[in-house]
Amino acid sequence: MTSVRHLITGGAGFIAVNLARALIARGDFVVAVDDLSRGGMSLISDLSPLPEFSFHQQDCADVEGLHAVVRGEGRIDEVWHLAANSDIPAGVEDARVDLDRTFMTTFATLEVMKRAGIPTLHFASSSAVYGDRGAEAVGEDSGPLRPISNYGAMKLASEAQISAAQETFLERADIFRFPNVVGTPATHGVILDFIGKLRRDPKRLDVLGNGRQQKPYLHVHELIAAMLHIRAVPGRGQVVNIGPDDDGVTVARIAQAVRDHVSPSASIVYGQEAAGWVGDVPQFRYLTRRLSDLGWRSALSSEQAIVRAVMEIATQEEMS
Amino acid sequence: MTSVRHLITGGAGFIAVNLARALIARGDFVVAVDDLSRGGMSLISDLSPLPEFSFHQQDCADVEGLHAVVRGEGRIDEVWHLAANSDIPAGVEDARVDLDRTFMTTFATLEVMKRAGIPTLHFASSSAVYGDRGAEAVGEDSGPLRPISNYGAMKLASEAQISAAQETFLERADIFRFPNVVGTPATHGVILDFIGKLRRDPKRLDVLGNGRQQKPYLHVHELIAAMLHIRAVPGRGQVVNIGPDDDGVTVARIAQAVRDHVSPSASIVYGQEAAGWVGDVPQFRYLTRRLSDLGWRSALSSEQAIVRAVMEIATQEEMS
Repeated sequence: MTSVRHLITGGAGFIAVNLARALIARGDFVVAVDDLSRGGMSLISDLSPLPEFSFHQQDCADVEGLHAVVRGEGRIDEVWHLAANSDIPAGVEDARVDLDRTFMTTFATLEVMKRAGIPTLHFASSSAVYGDRGAEAVGEDSGPLRPISNYGAMKLASEAQISAAQETFLERADIFRFPNVVGTPATHGVILDFIGKLRRDPKRLDVLGNGRQQKPYLHVHELIAAMLHIRAVPGRGQVVNIGPDDDGVTVARIAQAVRDHVSPSASIVYGQEAAGWVGDVPQFRYLTRRLSDLGWRSALSSEQAIVRAVMEIATQEEMS
Repeated sequence: MTSVRHLITGGAGFIAVNLARALIARGDFVVAVDDLSRGGMSLISDLSPLPEFSFHQQDCADVEGLHAVVRGEGRIDEVWHLAANSDIPAGVEDARVDLDRTFMTTFATLEVMKRAGIPTLHFASSSAVYGDRGAEAVGEDSGPLRPISNYGAMKLASEAQISAAQETFLERADIFRFPNVVGTPATHGVILDFIGKLRRDPKRLDVLGNGRQQKPYLHVHELIAAMLHIRAVPGRGQVVNIGPDDDGVTVARIAQAVRDHVSPSASIVYGQEAAGWVGDVPQFRYLTRRLSDLGWRSALSSEQAIVRAVMEIATQEEMS
């Protein structure tokens, strides 16, 4: 049997490199495409030498450039579309950031799949499509969808494009709505921010917002396992909330976990705002029944995922 | 009191010219911007001479061009964003049509409003954001939103952008989800298609699909009245289904109404498909409770709107 050939857009990102490792471990082949606008080749340094891995530096919003990569690689069976802006505040400031990196990468990916006749898409969407729903636990079919950041808007806009593409050429589309995902190689996010702050000032950790923001967190290894589980379900694909089976963890608890591990004598100083920044959803709860009905549950709680990731990211930073 | 100054994108379109007339009748000033890619100046020939009306031929997806128009016009108080592709099958064929005309016009409109400090937006969204929900009557907050055409996808994507903009600079946004809208000056749509077919062959009317597609129709005069009613509701704006308070009218009934008026001896020949074309929603039902709770109901049923529009459009075509 010939191995499955996967294309990963945003292939040098945090989640993508974990996905590529898992696919290669299954005996598959991975073509990674990334513009390296954030981070660089360092994240894929262990993958690059592998014969089952191919990397192209390429803007994934450029239809012709992406199409040239696909033509050059020959057969591609499935696409994992992970390319997106990962700096949410930057996208709130300038709408063009998420337009170009989160939305136009989806447009180009679909256009190239249509031209090249690639039938299967797995898309990294986000809980950000739901907007601020307060304490309500939101399921995949629940509305309204009122994103409060351009990041969330362009993820929803991408889902909409994919939905329309399923009426024409796209045979299967899995739309994974990610929670907050933690682990290594960490390139951004609250744990890395807190560790950086404590390295600069080991006595004091300033937290954006009042610390009561509460959201679900999943370890990246579990996220990859969940995606591969959903991928194996027959059919035309579906929209699935991926997350732990709990109500999440507060920013205050994350700050304590980082402080306890990195600089136990530091004091934690909170801000006044409910949200950490414009576009930040202060509280969020997922319904994950569809995921559990499909037969997958996370082994780690949100808090356990945080504690593990704090250790992993602290080690990563000590080595850097 | 100085008059309110409105900008209408897609200002030379069918709904836009009816809106402009209504706003001018209230004593307001209208700046219309349109690329004239469909139709032309003929639709605004009665408006052009008015001192309360100003027209600019300009692509509404071009941020700098649109911004130059707004700067040149001085104060703009409110924007009515109606620019969009109106040829749904064309957008199914080539995703770039709705990307450029339906989505990027929204991006540019919001960018210009942000730069120019215009706080109020009224947006022409569509029942197409809901996708194919079968016989279910869909309310504004109900999910999932799974559009089946690029037109519907880019309308939903536009709603998402507007939602995010309300977190930053946009003070008010009314999102009107339009049903099928009929009346004059007709530029496209099922009634005009049927009249054209009967003029070419007065003995036979070929209908795309089996005629059982059933959707709500609203007369354009009522649509304008509903939008102005919602605009007068205080607050930050909301998403509102605009439609008649009924289950719609079938394509077969529309075909009969046109046949009876235009060429009573013609035979009507139906196709086999449930949908008229890829991206066509065969059946659609609106919940309009939010609209009625706001104090507005249509005077005409879907069928009455069709019958009136058939007479109006037939007259228009006889004069052309």
